[in-house]
Amino acid sequence: MERFINPDRNQWQALTQRASASYASLEPLVKTVFNAVEKEGEQAVKNYTLEFDKVEIQNIVVSKQEIVQAVDRVPNELKVAIKRAKENIMRFHEAQITAPVEVETQPGVSCWQKKLPIEKVGLYIPGGSAPLFSTVLMLAIPAKVAGCQEIVLCSPPDSNGLLADVILYTANLCGVDSIFKVGGMQAIAGMTLGTESIPKVDKIFGPGNQFVTVAKQLATQYQVSIDMPAGPSELMVVADKTGNPDFIASDLLSQAEHGPDSQVILVTNDIEIADATFEKVAEQLEKLERKSTAQKALNNSKVICFDNDQELLDFVNRYGAEHLIVCLDNETEFVNQIKHAGSIFIGNYTPESAGDYASGTNHTLPTNGYVRQYSGVNLDSFLKAITYQKITADGLIDLGPVIEAMATAEGLQAHKNAVSIRLKTLKS
Amino acid sequence: MERFINPDRNQWQALTQRASASYASLEPLVKTVFNAVEKEGEQAVKNYTLEFDKVEIQNIVVSKQEIVQAVDRVPNELKVAIKRAKENIMRFHEAQITAPVEVETQPGVSCWQKKLPIEKVGLYIPGGSAPLFSTVLMLAIPAKVAGCQEIVLCSPPDSNGLLADVILYTANLCGVDSIFKVGGMQAIAGMTLGTESIPKVDKIFGPGNQFVTVAKQLATQYQVSIDMPAGPSELMVVADKTGNPDFIASDLLSQAEHGPDSQVILVTNDIEIADATFEKVAEQLEKLERKSTAQKALNNSKVICFDNDQELLDFVNRYGAEHLIVCLDNETEFVNQIKHAGSIFIGNYTPESAGDYASGTNHTLPTNGYVRQYSGVNLDSFLKAITYQKITADGLIDLGPVIEAMATAEGLQAHKNAVSIRLKTLKS
Repeated sequence: MERFINPDRNQWQALTQRASASYASLEPLVKTVFNAVEKEGEQAVKNYTLEFDKVEIQNIVVSKQEIVQAVDRVPNELKVAIKRAKENIMRFHEAQITAPVEVETQPGVSCWQKKLPIEKVGLYIPGGSAPLFSTVLMLAIPAKVAGCQEIVLCSPPDSNGLLADVILYTANLCGVDSIFKVGGMQAIAGMTLGTESIPKVDKIFGPGNQFVTVAKQLATQYQVSIDMPAGPSELMVVADKTGNPDFIASDLLSQAEHGPDSQVILVTNDIEIADATFEKVAEQLEKLERKSTAQKALNNSKVICFDNDQELLDFVNRYGAEHLIVCLDNETEFVNQIKHAGSIFIGNYTPESAGDYASGTNHTLPTNGYVRQYSGVNLDSFLKAITYQKITADGLIDLGPVIEAMATAEGLQAHKNAVSIRLKTLKS
Repeated sequence: MERFINPDRNQWQALTQRASASYASLEPLVKTVFNAVEKEGEQAVKNYTLEFDKVEIQNIVVSKQEIVQAVDRVPNELKVAIKRAKENIMRFHEAQITAPVEVETQPGVSCWQKKLPIEKVGLYIPGGSAPLFSTVLMLAIPAKVAGCQEIVLCSPPDSNGLLADVILYTANLCGVDSIFKVGGMQAIAGMTLGTESIPKVDKIFGPGNQFVTVAKQLATQYQVSIDMPAGPSELMVVADKTGNPDFIASDLLSQAEHGPDSQVILVTNDIEIADATFEKVAEQLEKLERKSTAQKALNNSKVICFDNDQELLDFVNRYGAEHLIVCLDNETEFVNQIKHAGSIFIGNYTPESAGDYASGTNHTLPTNGYVRQYSGVNLDSFLKAITYQKITADGLIDLGPVIEAMATAEGLQAHKNAVSIRLKTLKS
């Protein structure tokens, strides 16, 4: 971990820079995959699974029987934990339900807004070294709370052509309608275009590697929307002398173990905390199974000390972390001044992993500075708002002249006529 | 207007098809513009304004003095109308403010969600034959209600290098911070990348032609988000015998006058209404200033009659209109079954132009079937949600084992450690 003391503002651009994957360099390959799936359908999906995932799949659909068997095999203790997490996540997302907005903007002019579920949603669950069933919870629960009619899930098969039992268990528990053993670009292409078995969806959710990310961005050119562009995960810890170096080190490492491109930053006004955390990181790192991955991430990581509180706050806002842990004496005041972050974890007993799994908040969050304009996945991500209006005859008599004047000024005579022709019948 | 009676479901795909602009064919030109603006900054913006808009601009920034003079020149009657519209639009968008969501998901585990404004937003106001100041209202008002810190507006200059007085008046009235005489792809590139005078924004809003639409989609590859992909405007009217053919004709024509690619459809269960509306359209069309534009749009327009109510409803949902006017005896029952539409206008005295200008709802809406997954512009379009959590020591003692079990099952030992290391201090 490199250390910086009171870095000058002109250094901040470099200090907040993420390793950016190049969209342009990956796009041609992703387009090829989309074109093949468009032309050859499911056969193309299977061909790419063989080519990229090195496994030949006869039937990409997970059967009811496979699910029943998987549910059987998941240890009971794990089921209990998953159900506890599910309850918390459901509670937090149900609390996000909003009543319709209804306003009589002026007498006789009623306007309202109602949120309706997005009908068909596709959830992408990445594969890799471990079965990320927690992401199933984070995407399927709000989809179900929103009332989405069809929930489709794709995840890459392992070398035996199977999905992990716990993925199937969790998907089934959360009411996913269909599960496919397909990953990568070909999964995104499949959900975007539809194949013989994979339904074409309206919106695609979920994290993934750089190919999946580019595929999701390409999908937006095919009548599909996406939750957000995703990138390598990030954690920033802000601590003063009230922070606990042992805890902070464990948080930094929990992020570092995700992948060699994970972003890990400690910002502090206390050089002793920085030094002590350094030591604890080294100590804890030794005992990690994923030590070599974490070590690589730590090589790009930073400890930044600021004497000036305002500079510290400005830097934290400038960085815009996906995950922000705040261990400060004046935590409330500080947090109220944070403008850009994905999810904020406050105090010494709030590790990021609580939000990753079980506290209730969503762990699918914007990275790479996209916190400036994107929300993390939440209930609204699965809804769309429709507006309605009804105007009475008297309402139109009052509002009509305003519309007529504006339409005339915009040179849109037929827009004016639509009002005038009605007013004429009301005044005669 | 072509007429269809009880079209078979296998015809629906064709009947709901929009004229789709090809992203691929326009992309190379749009990329060239982005690259030039990235390299040469504002000079490139000026060069393209000369090339595409045929006007040489020395200074693209609208000065305070220009605004003062414009405000002076706008007729008082129009000012009064705009202010009335502003009040209604503000009232409806203020009603969309939501309180923070706060939940103790389990004892000692507090989770909350708060919406914060997107800091810098860019509003694109198209030019063309008329000054679309109503779009300024529809974008700047919710931006201001949301609390966006910097509101930037770009609109193409006329042949004298100027913006219409009423655009400047409305922008000033709504609290826009800076206004630029720049349109088209170069405006989108300018707000995406920033130039000497145009600030780089976080999110870009507003309608535009196909070049602007492709430019907005390209912008999403440069750390900018957009409101939605936009296309030619659409209106569907659903009427039974309670509809008024004169009113319906005026609504269809108000949409048709927008442009030759406007989509206009009448769906009815009453052939007499269809026939009568045909006549009224022909009659009203003769008197329109924009007759030739409207005529072109009508050439692609359709009247569709269904005997079967369920078929009619299904077709309306399948089409997913940007604007949907409902004049039916059972209007409430019907509207409650609509799943896909942008904005719905109910009853004989609710012309679409009310929502275009002054009733309070937003007129920036998804087209081309994107109502399936996008909301129209609303207050939330200018906000992002951040989640927060704070766990007490006791809360972690209770929830910790759940997190540990799940992290272990995902093979993420450091995630588990972040909990274990805290629990150890609490239990000792």
